[in-house]
Amino acid sequence: MNKSLRIFAPATVANLSCGFDVLGCCLDTVGDEMVVSLTPDPEVTITKIEGANLPLESHKNVAGVATKALLKKYNKEVGVNIEIYKNIKAGSGIGSSAASSAGAVWAVNRLLNSPFTNHELISFAMEGEKLASGNAHADNVAPALLGGFTLVRSYEPLDVIKLHTPEDLMVTVIHPQIEVKTSDSRSVIKHRVSLKKAIQQWGNVGGFIAGLYTNNYQLIGRSLEDVIIEPLRSILIPEFDAVKETALSKGALGCGISGSGPSIFALSKGEKTANLVAEAIRDVYSKTGLEFDIHVSKINNQGIKILS
Amino acid sequence: MNKSLRIFAPATVANLSCGFDVLGCCLDTVGDEMVVSLTPDPEVTITKIEGANLPLESHKNVAGVATKALLKKYNKEVGVNIEIYKNIKAGSGIGSSAASSAGAVWAVNRLLNSPFTNHELISFAMEGEKLASGNAHADNVAPALLGGFTLVRSYEPLDVIKLHTPEDLMVTVIHPQIEVKTSDSRSVIKHRVSLKKAIQQWGNVGGFIAGLYTNNYQLIGRSLEDVIIEPLRSILIPEFDAVKETALSKGALGCGISGSGPSIFALSKGEKTANLVAEAIRDVYSKTGLEFDIHVSKINNQGIKILS
Repeated sequence: MNKSLRIFAPATVANLSCGFDVLGCCLDTVGDEMVVSLTPDPEVTITKIEGANLPLESHKNVAGVATKALLKKYNKEVGVNIEIYKNIKAGSGIGSSAASSAGAVWAVNRLLNSPFTNHELISFAMEGEKLASGNAHADNVAPALLGGFTLVRSYEPLDVIKLHTPEDLMVTVIHPQIEVKTSDSRSVIKHRVSLKKAIQQWGNVGGFIAGLYTNNYQLIGRSLEDVIIEPLRSILIPEFDAVKETALSKGALGCGISGSGPSIFALSKGEKTANLVAEAIRDVYSKTGLEFDIHVSKINNQGIKILS
Repeated sequence: MNKSLRIFAPATVANLSCGFDVLGCCLDTVGDEMVVSLTPDPEVTITKIEGANLPLESHKNVAGVATKALLKKYNKEVGVNIEIYKNIKAGSGIGSSAASSAGAVWAVNRLLNSPFTNHELISFAMEGEKLASGNAHADNVAPALLGGFTLVRSYEPLDVIKLHTPEDLMVTVIHPQIEVKTSDSRSVIKHRVSLKKAIQQWGNVGGFIAGLYTNNYQLIGRSLEDVIIEPLRSILIPEFDAVKETALSKGALGCGISGSGPSIFALSKGEKTANLVAEAIRDVYSKTGLEFDIHVSKINNQGIKILS
């Protein structure tokens, strides 16, 4: 039995335009590294965090809180130490806290010889999300843990479905390094929506999922439409409309807000288009004077990976 | 070239709980017959209607109006005569008007050597629906024309997707012969809904469609939940709750209102369960003193069929 694992904990894109709070997908080339070890003392410790200014106290750190949720259910005396090497910036909208929460519980579970399924790990990782945002959402931790595209069909009871991933789907993400306060990003959302728009939205969710299962890239593209949240939240993201228009003009299937932003994602068929999209939106953003990162990634159908 | 076709025009179940206004499926053993013929005079005539008290004037009859919409686009002088033998009762909620509209345009298209695809026929048949209900909806005509399960992803532009149909899915339908006025059935619907419930609904639409593509009957069942329309409309249907409870207790995967009611549908895996469900809800309804019909059908993956 391994006593220590070095893992890759991937970034994720939640919502995917039409699927607010239910859809998400897992990235392949963007993510953190973590070293998770079993220790003799029955405590959860975090001894190293590089790349981010995050608390080492395990009850204040999402990875610590998620690990403790797992160990509480496991109900045997286990000690865990965690080191976190962050590449995903906090507040970027590509699942930074989810990567740490999901990575921690996934590695601990492996070190314990997998007493839990990956599906079962979701609820532990959600405790980390609750610490991070006050809301135990699953739309980032689910794709991090299961890989590919995931659907959170229901929260009560929790019911997460791993969907089919068409092979040629690629993601381009731009992360403008501005701070969008969670409170602002939430306050623009209205608690009641028109039934007409809700029907459009669930038509698109249906179309998107049918598109995934039939490898119908055009249908996936047509379905990447958000008539409810994007019109409200996009105003918080500089040059959102220009980025979207540019991405679509370069052949992206669709483009929208990643999670609650400020990152913007685009889906494309094939690496060539995804790179073209990246270059073009780089040009758009270069003119703003804002700092930004751009990532191009295929869909990671595996999720978290062991590095050593 | 045939000058005349006798066809089977199937009943359909729209909405399917979670998929209000977007989902529908096609039945196999319930439907009308129609005889559609090309005639020398460039007019649309309806010379016979049996089984229902419907107008023979072609501009007042859904089959006539749908046919005229097709011929207008076809833009050549063609005469059509239609005979309709109704088995689907008007106002039953299983697509009576849709069967006539869809059947007429499908047969005329065949007689003209198929200048239009079945997808293209949908918009003509929708003109019949507009006459019937004031609303050119597609969620009954689409499954009648395409067969199986269909999704209306979008109306503007019209985008209808034929979904995958798991082989063992069966439908049980009970039609209580009460009149629910369309105005009543509409007036109970609220034009604004809570975002929380809308999210639940699109999670279920996603789950339902994922269930269809993966032949996951349990997932289909869990997803057959309507938190928005059913709680409001079911009060117009006598013994709805008792029928639903009974159907589920006998093994139905799910149960809900067919279209805008008053018919109630249940989906089951396998004919045996579908028949058990039929017997049990027959017992429930026998006690009410109301007249009712019960149908058991597999999903008709073909749609409209030529009889001779």
